[in-house]
Amino acid sequence: MPIDPKQFRSALGTFATGVTIVTTRDRSGTDIGLTVNSFSSVSLDPPMVLWSLAKKSQSRQAFIDAGCFAVHILAADQSELATRFASPVDRFAGLALERGEHGLPLLDGCAARFQCRTVSRYEGGDHDIFIGEVISYEHFERPALVFHAGRYALSVEKPAAPSQNGKPADELGRNSVTQLLARAYYQLELSVRPQLARHNVCESEYFILAATALVGPCSIASVVDMVGVSGREVTVADMKRLAKQRLLAISGGEDANATIQLTDAGREIVVQVAAAAKAVESDAVTDLSYAEIEMFKQMLRRIIRRTKQPRRKEA
Amino acid sequence: MPIDPKQFRSALGTFATGVTIVTTRDRSGTDIGLTVNSFSSVSLDPPMVLWSLAKKSQSRQAFIDAGCFAVHILAADQSELATRFASPVDRFAGLALERGEHGLPLLDGCAARFQCRTVSRYEGGDHDIFIGEVISYEHFERPALVFHAGRYALSVEKPAAPSQNGKPADELGRNSVTQLLARAYYQLELSVRPQLARHNVCESEYFILAATALVGPCSIASVVDMVGVSGREVTVADMKRLAKQRLLAISGGEDANATIQLTDAGREIVVQVAAAAKAVESDAVTDLSYAEIEMFKQMLRRIIRRTKQPRRKEA
Repeated sequence: MPIDPKQFRSALGTFATGVTIVTTRDRSGTDIGLTVNSFSSVSLDPPMVLWSLAKKSQSRQAFIDAGCFAVHILAADQSELATRFASPVDRFAGLALERGEHGLPLLDGCAARFQCRTVSRYEGGDHDIFIGEVISYEHFERPALVFHAGRYALSVEKPAAPSQNGKPADELGRNSVTQLLARAYYQLELSVRPQLARHNVCESEYFILAATALVGPCSIASVVDMVGVSGREVTVADMKRLAKQRLLAISGGEDANATIQLTDAGREIVVQVAAAAKAVESDAVTDLSYAEIEMFKQMLRRIIRRTKQPRRKEA
Repeated sequence: MPIDPKQFRSALGTFATGVTIVTTRDRSGTDIGLTVNSFSSVSLDPPMVLWSLAKKSQSRQAFIDAGCFAVHILAADQSELATRFASPVDRFAGLALERGEHGLPLLDGCAARFQCRTVSRYEGGDHDIFIGEVISYEHFERPALVFHAGRYALSVEKPAAPSQNGKPADELGRNSVTQLLARAYYQLELSVRPQLARHNVCESEYFILAATALVGPCSIASVVDMVGVSGREVTVADMKRLAKQRLLAISGGEDANATIQLTDAGREIVVQVAAAAKAVESDAVTDLSYAEIEMFKQMLRRIIRRTKQPRRKEA
């Protein structure tokens, strides 16, 4: 039964891999490199690794001639580099390079890199399998990039058995996503409340200032609308109160179409409260890795997108 | 310079991999299998894959003799199976097996599986490299397990450049975890608000009812305290109002030490609102996999633990 290459590739793609760039230098001294995810460790003693290269690759002869190569395991923030080293561009243009054994080009910013001496090249269908003995390696403290199901990904530690931290949500909604969200949000917010008190503004007032800071001068209606997106109801009266405290300036009337603008004093409060909130938040996510925080934010955005309300009009 | 095996392994571990179980059948008809993460795709035409086996492995002769093997790419919920197939136990005990070519034992529940004919065995230091031509394969719609930095992991799609959905948190706190949490929570809550209106209770009142439902008969002070944990301020007056509506029953006085208890009507509201909230939540997390939801909750719990306030006393 013939195997459809596209479907076969998709089935293979269920096997997650890291992403590497393998480099060498050709006989003329030109740097060569390409993105490879067919890397694998082989042996500990002697230390050996392998990777596969398409026989029709233009770099094939260079790798055969050089007899050595460097493997860079890419960091989570290097997906653009991976794309570049899979594209028909001047791949090394503008990159800061170090030089390894035999002048091997070494890239910066990766999670680990290995300099290898080619010890064998084996037949593998439409690919050659290069086996390298590791001469030296470096390991940097950076989260690494993942390639899975045809896309760049990040990995997060698998949670222990789901029941570990309390039961599933019951008929009273205990332990539901919503309850946990509410709790996490309120606890974060509680920590910032003393800041608001210090500046003598309540929460609604702070949200008006923050929304105005975001967009610059705008109509009262648009701020009511913006704050409304987060579920808070604010009124023209709230803004007038802020104007009286000289935190906002209102011009062009006093109705919903009037323009409001932050004063320097108002902006100062927003910046200070945001700084305090940032400190609280940094502390709150101390236990989470970079990948986990990115994933967490991504999930919040998916929930936000999914629960998005139609924008409300100013009454 | 000698290479320390432990440190070398740790550097290699930055390269994420999937997790496979490779199986075969020995000459006596006994099923053989082991957990392998040195799997790699090699060739599309002909379709070929490889994996490495320690020369000192007890299964080595069986794989050499059989001339065929099956590779199972494990699903996210199969980490226990991975552990089992790396342990000195009866690995196949109690497993539902299918039979493939030449009686190959095929495991159930994986993300993909490949039946292969061994076409070469290459020298790789302390390992043999088995090259197999893929005779047939199956691809199942299941998220796959990841092994990274020495632990089982799950992969999540890498968010596009952080700037895509707004910039990183700036001095005004835009796009911060707190802002996203607030937005997600409020949007979830907004969807449930019509339910509260239908039952003619406001949000604080609902939280009192929900807290009382949680613990059963208890003092007013303890409910004020419980609701307070989520940042909401409620008072004895709120409870008296609920008692007037016959949603709560107050006994033993009217101060903080009085006992409150849910009436049937009160409990009915809690159950109905929780059911509505559950429906909203299920819809909100439609795009998230089971693993993602579990991880998301785990992260919320870590933030909650980290930002926990000292319990407040009733004034």
